[in-house]
Amino acid sequence: MGDTDPYLICNAKLATMNGNDTPYGQINEGAVAICNGLVDWVGPMSDLPTRYTNCARKSLNGRLITPALIDCHTHIVHGGDRALEFEMRLNGASYEDVARAGGGIVSTVKATRAATPEDLVQSALPRLDALLAEGISTVEIKSGYGLDRETELNMLRAARRLGELRPITVKTTFLGAHATPAEYKTRDDAYIDTVCIPTLRAAHAEGLVDAVDGFCENIAFAPAQIERVFKVARELGLPVKLHAEQLSHQGGTALAAHYGALSVDHVEYATEDDAKAMAASGSVAVILPGAFYTIRETQAPPIEHFRRHGVPMALATDCNPGSSPLTSLLLAMNMGCTLFRMTPEEALAGVTCNAARALGLTDRGKIAAGMRADLAVWDVETPAELAYRIGFNPLYTHIYEGKQ
Amino acid sequence: MGDTDPYLICNAKLATMNGNDTPYGQINEGAVAICNGLVDWVGPMSDLPTRYTNCARKSLNGRLITPALIDCHTHIVHGGDRALEFEMRLNGASYEDVARAGGGIVSTVKATRAATPEDLVQSALPRLDALLAEGISTVEIKSGYGLDRETELNMLRAARRLGELRPITVKTTFLGAHATPAEYKTRDDAYIDTVCIPTLRAAHAEGLVDAVDGFCENIAFAPAQIERVFKVARELGLPVKLHAEQLSHQGGTALAAHYGALSVDHVEYATEDDAKAMAASGSVAVILPGAFYTIRETQAPPIEHFRRHGVPMALATDCNPGSSPLTSLLLAMNMGCTLFRMTPEEALAGVTCNAARALGLTDRGKIAAGMRADLAVWDVETPAELAYRIGFNPLYTHIYEGKQ
Ligand SMILES: [Zn+2]
Ligand SMILES: [Zn+2]
Repeated sequence: MGDTDPYLICNAKLATMNGNDTPYGQINEGAVAICNGLVDWVGPMSDLPTRYTNCARKSLNGRLITPALIDCHTHIVHGGDRALEFEMRLNGASYEDVARAGGGIVSTVKATRAATPEDLVQSALPRLDALLAEGISTVEIKSGYGLDRETELNMLRAARRLGELRPITVKTTFLGAHATPAEYKTRDDAYIDTVCIPTLRAAHAEGLVDAVDGFCENIAFAPAQIERVFKVARELGLPVKLHAEQLSHQGGTALAAHYGALSVDHVEYATEDDAKAMAASGSVAVILPGAFYTIRETQAPPIEHFRRHGVPMALATDCNPGSSPLTSLLLAMNMGCTLFRMTPEEALAGVTCNAARALGLTDRGKIAAGMRADLAVWDVETPAELAYRIGFNPLYTHIYEGKQ
Repeated sequence: MGDTDPYLICNAKLATMNGNDTPYGQINEGAVAICNGLVDWVGPMSDLPTRYTNCARKSLNGRLITPALIDCHTHIVHGGDRALEFEMRLNGASYEDVARAGGGIVSTVKATRAATPEDLVQSALPRLDALLAEGISTVEIKSGYGLDRETELNMLRAARRLGELRPITVKTTFLGAHATPAEYKTRDDAYIDTVCIPTLRAAHAEGLVDAVDGFCENIAFAPAQIERVFKVARELGLPVKLHAEQLSHQGGTALAAHYGALSVDHVEYATEDDAKAMAASGSVAVILPGAFYTIRETQAPPIEHFRRHGVPMALATDCNPGSSPLTSLLLAMNMGCTLFRMTPEEALAGVTCNAARALGLTDRGKIAAGMRADLAVWDVETPAELAYRIGFNPLYTHIYEGKQ
């Protein structure tokens, strides 16, 4: 059986997310055999192969096992916070007042540039630990608050370092095309060509980039500017994804689909044609209810179009200091259901199998033989409870690569 | 100095909630002297009286101290949950489908009646522990899912028991006038007179009632029915509060104000005249954003009226299995700000000094000499951060009656 003896987790309810006909791929009296950090076998206890009869067993007393959760869209590495700006606005300050006081993304860029790589790691750790406490085994982390070569690289280095410090897989995304820094104000094209793209090449050369992202919006970059970045990504063999149609319809989704994007994220203003394009390209719609809630957006993403055309939907925290200071993926699941009428099953798929797909990962997000043994065990009766409760963490234990 | 020696907590930022001119009653380099479970002195370290010069000290390295939090409106004692009903509805079931499947409040009443007192305690403990983990020292717990004599009494006994099992003060509220049970269908008056009121008397005789509440709504009880319960409360010397104007305007607020209610709760549909009546009676407006969010209500409570007329505002979880399965008071603070545009200072007052007032408590909710030493210590830079973050718990430590 390889390096280690297999062991069996039994007396559990399983939401494998791997059934075609059964909701949640649910198995009520199930067991999972684990060997060498992988799932060796999964099924009803009554079908247990004899080769596991004598192996070590752990009973879960009927608890629920799901794939470990995956947060496929975060900005958890950043300097500072925006609590005082949040307070200023609630005390009646206008956006201009806030800008004059140095607020907005500018303040996060300033704080991120001022931080050492170690500062970036230390300030991200409590946020990462909050995610880990909810059974998250894989987290995507973006750059995009440096907007200069050194700070963008430092953000990605900090992200990689976080993956060494905790039992979690970190997937890094280069988001140089997040905003134009003050020193390039009104010179977006120059920023893209002389800072963003060269920094992408440098980051890639250092092995820091798993995917390439951008922010396509009237307050950020136009599709033609994003496309220049995507062309370099393609040349480097890197997959792309895009923040698109969050505040208005700019055509980013069609562009991303054209480049075979792993995911298109936010997508509140995506159209049915966009949904068709995403279905054709196999791109995942990453739904980010934390940002929708925080900025009090009223246009919900077109869940019905995504369902009708078979676009897989993921849910993520979008954890960032400005528009989504959210560190609970369980709460993102509840928000997906409450605000957007996703079903609890769609919500769980959104943080497991579909989140894996949004990161291009085929070895996790389902409980199936040969997949990584990244599992979450919950003190709940039914998988629907994970999305139903608000601000409650029923995690019993977390298994990462077969280890508790 | 009494039974025990005083000790000093120093090197802290304080949000005392006791200043008239300074936001949050904030003291930046503050100290709190604690003796016999009470605050003996509080102020800037530079003003420390010499009597504390040699007492034991604990440095907080600049962390923030607030009054311990108070959740002044919960239904955490109940049987069962409503996760499957939540799922049914998201899968397209109508309210009638859900009712036919045994859902709605009926299912909670059924599960609560089927539970033993010990079951009620055990099932509430994880919810209570979630609140404790956020620095909550005082929690109100209502009856109202029994709707028969024995189960209403059991709910209140379970609530009292919870206060013995954990370092937390439990205030009990009798909510017999929550709904009419199936066996009294269309006989609301008979339920009030032959079950609710006699049960209130029995519960009071057993020392189980700190306040009396009702649900005044077109789907629950009319003001005249509530008033019969309030008259008995007055006769028994018990303070009253009321769930009022949540879904429509029924006049409950005016009734509650007339009876000098400690609080009127929900109040989405309260008018400016209601706000004036509450100001005159000194009733607190208890804002419950978890229910607003869950039922996707669109009418926000009239925060501006409450401000204009000086009605104190509290915030609470309303933790209940149907319309607010929320166990995070920090999240209620964020929702109060995000959904209702309360300020972070109003949000903190809403879970400290104003929540104390909603429970008729004058010995807590502020950091001041003579008050209970119920404190929460937070790993944050500014009090605004408590309301700004979503799904993140920055509690460093919790002090209850002077003990960690
Ligand atoms: Zn983002
Ligand atoms: Zn309530």
